[in-house]
Amino acid sequence: MIVRMAPRASRIAAGSAGTFETQFLDLPRPLVLDCGRTLHPIRIAYETYGTLSPARDNVILVCHALSGDAHAAGFAKTPPPESTRDGFGAEDRDGTAGRGLGWWDGMIGPGKAFDTDRFFVVSTNLLGGCRGTTGPSSTNPASGRPYGSDFPVITVADMVRTERAFLDEIGIERLAAVAGGSLGGMQALEWAVLYPDQVDAIVVIASTPALRPQGIAWNAIARNAIIADPDWQGGHYYDTGRAPNAGMGVARMVGHITYLSAMSLGEKFGRRLQFADDIRYTLTDPEFEIENYLRHQADTFVRRFDANTYLYTSRALTYFDLARQYGAGRLVDALRNVSARTLLIAFSSDWLYPPSGSEELAEALRALRKDVELHVIEAPYGHDCFLLEEARQTPLIQQFLAGQAAELGSRAEFRLE
Amino acid sequence: MIVRMAPRASRIAAGSAGTFETQFLDLPRPLVLDCGRTLHPIRIAYETYGTLSPARDNVILVCHALSGDAHAAGFAKTPPPESTRDGFGAEDRDGTAGRGLGWWDGMIGPGKAFDTDRFFVVSTNLLGGCRGTTGPSSTNPASGRPYGSDFPVITVADMVRTERAFLDEIGIERLAAVAGGSLGGMQALEWAVLYPDQVDAIVVIASTPALRPQGIAWNAIARNAIIADPDWQGGHYYDTGRAPNAGMGVARMVGHITYLSAMSLGEKFGRRLQFADDIRYTLTDPEFEIENYLRHQADTFVRRFDANTYLYTSRALTYFDLARQYGAGRLVDALRNVSARTLLIAFSSDWLYPPSGSEELAEALRALRKDVELHVIEAPYGHDCFLLEEARQTPLIQQFLAGQAAELGSRAEFRLE
Repeated sequence: MIVRMAPRASRIAAGSAGTFETQFLDLPRPLVLDCGRTLHPIRIAYETYGTLSPARDNVILVCHALSGDAHAAGFAKTPPPESTRDGFGAEDRDGTAGRGLGWWDGMIGPGKAFDTDRFFVVSTNLLGGCRGTTGPSSTNPASGRPYGSDFPVITVADMVRTERAFLDEIGIERLAAVAGGSLGGMQALEWAVLYPDQVDAIVVIASTPALRPQGIAWNAIARNAIIADPDWQGGHYYDTGRAPNAGMGVARMVGHITYLSAMSLGEKFGRRLQFADDIRYTLTDPEFEIENYLRHQADTFVRRFDANTYLYTSRALTYFDLARQYGAGRLVDALRNVSARTLLIAFSSDWLYPPSGSEELAEALRALRKDVELHVIEAPYGHDCFLLEEARQTPLIQQFLAGQAAELGSRAEFRLE
Repeated sequence: MIVRMAPRASRIAAGSAGTFETQFLDLPRPLVLDCGRTLHPIRIAYETYGTLSPARDNVILVCHALSGDAHAAGFAKTPPPESTRDGFGAEDRDGTAGRGLGWWDGMIGPGKAFDTDRFFVVSTNLLGGCRGTTGPSSTNPASGRPYGSDFPVITVADMVRTERAFLDEIGIERLAAVAGGSLGGMQALEWAVLYPDQVDAIVVIASTPALRPQGIAWNAIARNAIIADPDWQGGHYYDTGRAPNAGMGVARMVGHITYLSAMSLGEKFGRRLQFADDIRYTLTDPEFEIENYLRHQADTFVRRFDANTYLYTSRALTYFDLARQYGAGRLVDALRNVSARTLLIAFSSDWLYPPSGSEELAEALRALRKDVELHVIEAPYGHDCFLLEEARQTPLIQQFLAGQAAELGSRAEFRLE
């Protein structure tokens, strides 16, 4: 019940939330998971940006996607050895990644989409994570060694219940908004369904009520690449000096290409060769720039991310299916109790979480006469748009959070009736 | 110089080419490859269907794609333990795969698209293959052991020069047509460029003048999955009792999903669970039907296909780039000497070899005032369409081969001016 505020931010530059160090909190009670198992202890890694209002009514919970962490905004007081800025395929465009810029810094800060002059933004590393929150690399109290694959299989609902328990601990009951992209958007949706009386609004970006079959396949392939690596060792690799880096590298490559569009790959790399003069007739070395880029992406990712967290998180986002979980197969029934105002943003070139998923959500909410707004932004960068198209998302989010009808730079398909 | 005819076919059913056994021929001379190395000996696995005309002017060479073989039509006299019918994602729809039906049987036979009552159809296993033609699993005369990764890196042009040398041996100078889908279509294009005076027509299906960047990426990921498997052992695994089956399985899964469309995956599998009642909260076992299907596809493929052949063939089709090879970057210059009439067929849902590649070819040929016809067939099955949409391709190919303007069941975008 103690509000643990983040250390007072020292402004570094106009628009920056400041410099932050990730904090940790241990939940006092065990959590019963969807799979039936009970998890304890649970430590939560978190950061907060901005100031909690006396009425505690200005809290926005930001939820990260598969490879993110609690450090969503500002600079890290202790920058990690590897940037986390490439949360998806997005690259370090501004040269600040080496200084530990948060994964959604473009969206969180004074005057930004999630304005820290007005809101108290809370960001946690999700359950099952590898950046401070309890996950498969944490110590299993039953054995005194890392859980590995003995960690319970978790769901997006388990992540959200963990976030709920964490917020209880820091004395926050209601949320002005829950926001996230991709898996983060799934968490926002799950919040609106699980805790309809405690969420005023959700901002769901590049997400879906349930992953499409092709997305299930890509995730299955990525997980298969990891578990087929002999260094995975049945999930118990932590104490062996070996880790399934080869399999994780392949998983990351698959993920990376699914986050980008064919068009953006064409513009960025085309068929350019590594050695401009000609091909070298090599079986295993990169010949094309895109081949080299994929190797680089794989190499940097395996150094900063735990393979088991990848497996558990990929599984959770594959399971996620609002209609199955809450509506006996009907999305409209699953959303019946939602009271949060809903902002949906999708991107035209996102083929992993295509706009049709957001459209399905908007239609169901509209059929229920809920307050919903959908924007499909025409942009070429695929799923990665949610990390890249900050300038176009910002006015939509600002106006939504102001409770006003948005002036649209993009197509608004559904509005409150 | 001896024409070795296939054994006389015994008709099994109306429309079947008959029953065949793959034949073998050793090329008498070494072949100098694009990489500069010389290959010898070279054995070619082949089959022929129909009867060679006295004037030897009715020959159609059929070229297979990545995972095919010489057995293109009819039943195999000795059916292989595993069907080769699933050359791509296509499945055994008619229950005949167990009897060794050729990979393009729906297109080759009496009265079919490639009518064996009229044409003498020749099919070879490509250079680098693992189904009878010399490849990385063949014996390296320098060591007396399998080449493995000492096999030279090959190109599509090398495949075509090998086919040329083979046809010389069986006394065939001119080709009425060269036909193929995907990598097979690349070979047909390469034939038209390399031997403009010896090819009357080419039928290029679901192919491209150069693989798109996203396709380069998928192929790189598949190859990486194989070479990252410790059982690949630097490519020298044949005598070890171990093979990179895990990596090959992942490669096959990646390939499989790229051959299908998101829509066909949705229709075929949706989000159906393995156990209809609910999820089982398992980290590594298949939970969704599509996960199980991918495992099955991987398991059957690794039993019938050599990983090194996959690597070499994937490399060759990635290199293929008519504009770079023959036009100093300009496709129109590369095609300047083509004299073959050209039929291009593409499929609307093929995102690996999208219609834009065929459109690019048609535009360049049209600019050169060559005889070219393009049909984009609206069909939902992705790249696999070229193995599935037989009924809609057949009239287009028959009329093209008859030298007539086709009556179109599909959109003809470019025609001879």
